[in-house]
Amino acid sequence: MYSMAKRLLVGPPLATAEEHHTRLGRPTALAVFASDAVSSTAYATEEILLVLMPVAGLAALDFLVPISIVVAVLLTIVVFSYRQTIYAYPSGGGSYVVSRENLGVNASLIAGASLLVDYILTVAVSVSAGIAAITSAFPVLRDQRVWLCLIAIGVMMLVNLRGAKESGRLFAPPVYTYIVSLIILVGYGLYRVFLGGLEPMPLDEELLREIASNVDDGVAIFGAVSMLLVMRAFSSGAVALTGVEAISNGVPAFKKPESRNAATTLVAMAVILGGAFMGLSVLASHLEPVVSEEETLLSTMARYVYGGETPLYFVLQFATFAILILAANTAFADFPRVSSIIAGDGFMPRQLANRGDRLVFSNGIAVLAVVAGLLIVVFGGETSALIPLYAVGVFTGFTLSQAGMVRHHSAVREQGWRRSQVVNAVGAASTAVVLAVVVVSKFTKGAWIPAALIPLIVVGFKVIHRHYVRVARALETPADYQRPHRRHTVVVLVGGVNRSALEALAYAESLRPDRLIAATVVTSDEEHERALDDWERHGLTTELRLLHSPYRDLTSPVLSFIDEIDEEWPDDVITVIVPEFVLEHWWEAALHNQSALMLKARLRSRPNTVITAVPFHVSRPDGKT
Amino acid sequence: MYSMAKRLLVGPPLATAEEHHTRLGRPTALAVFASDAVSSTAYATEEILLVLMPVAGLAALDFLVPISIVVAVLLTIVVFSYRQTIYAYPSGGGSYVVSRENLGVNASLIAGASLLVDYILTVAVSVSAGIAAITSAFPVLRDQRVWLCLIAIGVMMLVNLRGAKESGRLFAPPVYTYIVSLIILVGYGLYRVFLGGLEPMPLDEELLREIASNVDDGVAIFGAVSMLLVMRAFSSGAVALTGVEAISNGVPAFKKPESRNAATTLVAMAVILGGAFMGLSVLASHLEPVVSEEETLLSTMARYVYGGETPLYFVLQFATFAILILAANTAFADFPRVSSIIAGDGFMPRQLANRGDRLVFSNGIAVLAVVAGLLIVVFGGETSALIPLYAVGVFTGFTLSQAGMVRHHSAVREQGWRRSQVVNAVGAASTAVVLAVVVVSKFTKGAWIPAALIPLIVVGFKVIHRHYVRVARALETPADYQRPHRRHTVVVLVGGVNRSALEALAYAESLRPDRLIAATVVTSDEEHERALDDWERHGLTTELRLLHSPYRDLTSPVLSFIDEIDEEWPDDVITVIVPEFVLEHWWEAALHNQSALMLKARLRSRPNTVITAVPFHVSRPDGKT
Repeated sequence: MYSMAKRLLVGPPLATAEEHHTRLGRPTALAVFASDAVSSTAYATEEILLVLMPVAGLAALDFLVPISIVVAVLLTIVVFSYRQTIYAYPSGGGSYVVSRENLGVNASLIAGASLLVDYILTVAVSVSAGIAAITSAFPVLRDQRVWLCLIAIGVMMLVNLRGAKESGRLFAPPVYTYIVSLIILVGYGLYRVFLGGLEPMPLDEELLREIASNVDDGVAIFGAVSMLLVMRAFSSGAVALTGVEAISNGVPAFKKPESRNAATTLVAMAVILGGAFMGLSVLASHLEPVVSEEETLLSTMARYVYGGETPLYFVLQFATFAILILAANTAFADFPRVSSIIAGDGFMPRQLANRGDRLVFSNGIAVLAVVAGLLIVVFGGETSALIPLYAVGVFTGFTLSQAGMVRHHSAVREQGWRRSQVVNAVGAASTAVVLAVVVVSKFTKGAWIPAALIPLIVVGFKVIHRHYVRVARALETPADYQRPHRRHTVVVLVGGVNRSALEALAYAESLRPDRLIAATVVTSDEEHERALDDWERHGLTTELRLLHSPYRDLTSPVLSFIDEIDEEWPDDVITVIVPEFVLEHWWEAALHNQSALMLKARLRSRPNTVITAVPFHVSRPDGKT
Repeated sequence: MYSMAKRLLVGPPLATAEEHHTRLGRPTALAVFASDAVSSTAYATEEILLVLMPVAGLAALDFLVPISIVVAVLLTIVVFSYRQTIYAYPSGGGSYVVSRENLGVNASLIAGASLLVDYILTVAVSVSAGIAAITSAFPVLRDQRVWLCLIAIGVMMLVNLRGAKESGRLFAPPVYTYIVSLIILVGYGLYRVFLGGLEPMPLDEELLREIASNVDDGVAIFGAVSMLLVMRAFSSGAVALTGVEAISNGVPAFKKPESRNAATTLVAMAVILGGAFMGLSVLASHLEPVVSEEETLLSTMARYVYGGETPLYFVLQFATFAILILAANTAFADFPRVSSIIAGDGFMPRQLANRGDRLVFSNGIAVLAVVAGLLIVVFGGETSALIPLYAVGVFTGFTLSQAGMVRHHSAVREQGWRRSQVVNAVGAASTAVVLAVVVVSKFTKGAWIPAALIPLIVVGFKVIHRHYVRVARALETPADYQRPHRRHTVVVLVGGVNRSALEALAYAESLRPDRLIAATVVTSDEEHERALDDWERHGLTTELRLLHSPYRDLTSPVLSFIDEIDEEWPDDVITVIVPEFVLEHWWEAALHNQSALMLKARLRSRPNTVITAVPFHVSRPDGKT
């Protein structure tokens, strides 16, 4: 049943030898790697306004373009910094690898934990923003958004368990449609504003009042835009940078010369991302839209610029949905890959490094889907509730990766390393400052969650690693290791003389032990006599020991009996044989005392003791079929 | 941990020999056995009014005394019928036993299922009515009634798991206090009505309106009291008879002459029960109280008769609570006892016939508490919602028990058997008619639940019995049974050459099998080579088979390998040995592939195959502590 359902959903298994890769040309690579970064334009501008507007009203719009310029400058710094990484690590330089090589184990574990948190949030944020694009176009669906998000995550999980190839053919159409739609929106919108005399959007007084009533912190008391608020708004806008590091991880996927093509693609991506982000901010500052959680900013502005729900409007909404789903999908490739690397280093459960039937890291895919789904449920599928959690992991990764590069240049001293080192140092310092701004300004808004979680994950990594080291040490076998020779005592536990007990006794004899004892638990003198009689009547010659249990408990008398016979020989191994029913239906197990199970659990931790269940097939008592 | 908590809550275990019984004198026996029957006076009159009043208003009171007289006549018939049972079954004649002996297996199973349903409802109804007595006195507690009921059930469960003796000293005070309180209430109430000029209670118009708004069926359309409604009211009143059969079960608990003392006590109990029930109905018909679910009828009338919340009022409320809890407690003795008898006959899981640490049938006690607790939660702790479910089981038991007695007299033909047979025939016929009335009139009100459940339980009984018969047949051992002699093949599954694998190999050698093979699963040619090298390097001479698994699945290659070697010898038994890590912490299991577990599950159903896990203690790799 299980395996049939699995075949149907996941497809037939693939052999290890069937693994292969295709190299990507620059336009396709741009589509594949840019989806994560570029898709953040769908919500970054809106998130800035969602911080400012409830407190400052339309005055918020004055801050939008300045904050966006700071974000764009930060983007430029980060992009130049990552160009160094691309050339230094042509085999792929994610922040876990770069930190491990240059900053040591602890830094790499922090980077790894940040990455995992980051990927989980990429799925949660992108999916909820993608569904928001759909519910903005079709408001009746808004109350179903949590379900819609979970369905999207479920579908992505299945697709990835099947082993979707990162085919450029799949990525290119939605990514380029989204980019073109944004260009049309910004271009046509600004054209109408400056040349077509488009007025700012009419004020929706009621909506503004409602937004103002959401004010929930001290900032509003001053009735002004405080420094803290600006920092918060900037922190929200900074999520536009997520996904910029993707290309540096994926250098080997480019056609030759890999590093050069990757670096060029990175710059192209940054230009598109920065341009679209700035364009949307400028457009918003002229249209003066009032943001709410009911409809996305993109949808509000497109509806106004296009004068209603025109075909172009729907193209934009669906393209937004599509690119955000693709962005989430990249996390489904990256999370399992990074966790398999960390698991390979012994810091995460080994199963995360196992390839499933379809050659993908199935366990990592499932873990990501479940955790992201939980986040969606807990935060009600609201993008803006998840944003404060997002930036912490992203900027921790940036900072460690760039700091690692600074050390890398000192160590390698390649041509022109001093200049490169300065670039990376500026990158590391800027992202570190942003990280501090994010944690401080958004701490009470949710940033405390990753700030607490990342160290906890690092502690978990270390505990797991210590366990694996301990096991490896215990398994070590010196070349001169002599296998111990031991005498063998076999104890057969029987409930009475019946077919299953006799089968178990026959099996025990076939082991040819040094000593064979049958034991049975009796709770009264009558049972004692009856057991002896039965034994004699069946002409059994095996030594029988009757264990008295006045309290009708089966485990303790057996345990003390085994302790007793264990003391006779110092070097023996004891095998305890228990007859066990093999039943046809699962519910039948409820009709039998599970004392054998209890005994098994208790004997497992006893040294030099092996417990063996001899199965008795109730439906085929004669054995061989 | 678990066993410490158990000792604290349940007490130290008792030896089988510690079981003993005390015989009860008549006054104490009356207290012990009457609690169930007499306690129903606390709600029976009220339940009649709760059916009639929402439709007929105060006209309902005209029907109260006539219906009560019919119930009292029925009580007389049933009591005389049960006197026959007491003399015929001095060792205890519950309806399960009487039906089994006289009517055959099927009838006894129906009786058994009815009894179990009946006991569960005794707990649910008595506890909710008992808590209603408390919340009537302290209305602030009414919203907490479900919790209060669950606490009461939990306490009873613990007390019974400890093995409370049915001590007369415990039962007598509350039972006699309740009886005396009722006599005072009825006596003083009627005195005030007839000689003190007490007027009927003032009409609470609002309450009457509220009650009238609850009307929810077609009966009300006619604005009159229809036949169906009267039948329903009578069915509710008939629950007064529950518990009458208790004495016939408990004859052996009486002092000698047992049957005679039991019969006398039964009549005394019936007089008290019938008198109190009639008295309350007469009092109610004069006081004209308006019933509601907010306050019990007893509480309403006592408050009015005593002119407020006097000490006598509180004594009555607490005595009502106490006797109802005692009534529920008798089910905690009866349910486990009856289910142990049924389990002993092989119709219920065998564990229900096992005595726990404290010599009580612990599993039955726990099952009763859980199911009754669920009923309380589902029906919101409302007595009147549970009443329609109650009478079906009770009257099914009565009918089968009395019908069994009719057959008994024909078979035994004791002195004067014809007269006795007529008595039982009248009893069987009357209770059968009442059963039909209950099922028909209350079907849509909840009687369908037991009407559907009892047959389902009977089917469950039969399925369980068939299973046990099948197992017993499979275990049968003819006297000339020859234990098969078989050749022994041992397969050791190893993941690589390490200490745990070497220990498992040493263990396998100590079994001195006819054939020993080590097997390891490899997923690539490199792994193949490496495994061979390791084997040679450690100088291992055991035959090594390399099982190729291109799809990285561990179970299937092992299974087909075992099939393959199993074909070589037709008569062999195969032992599969798997090294298994014994870890210190439960969570460490999540860090290892559980492929051995999967393999175990798959091999369990294979004939002539034994799977043995050789434990490797990671924290004590050297073995003996």
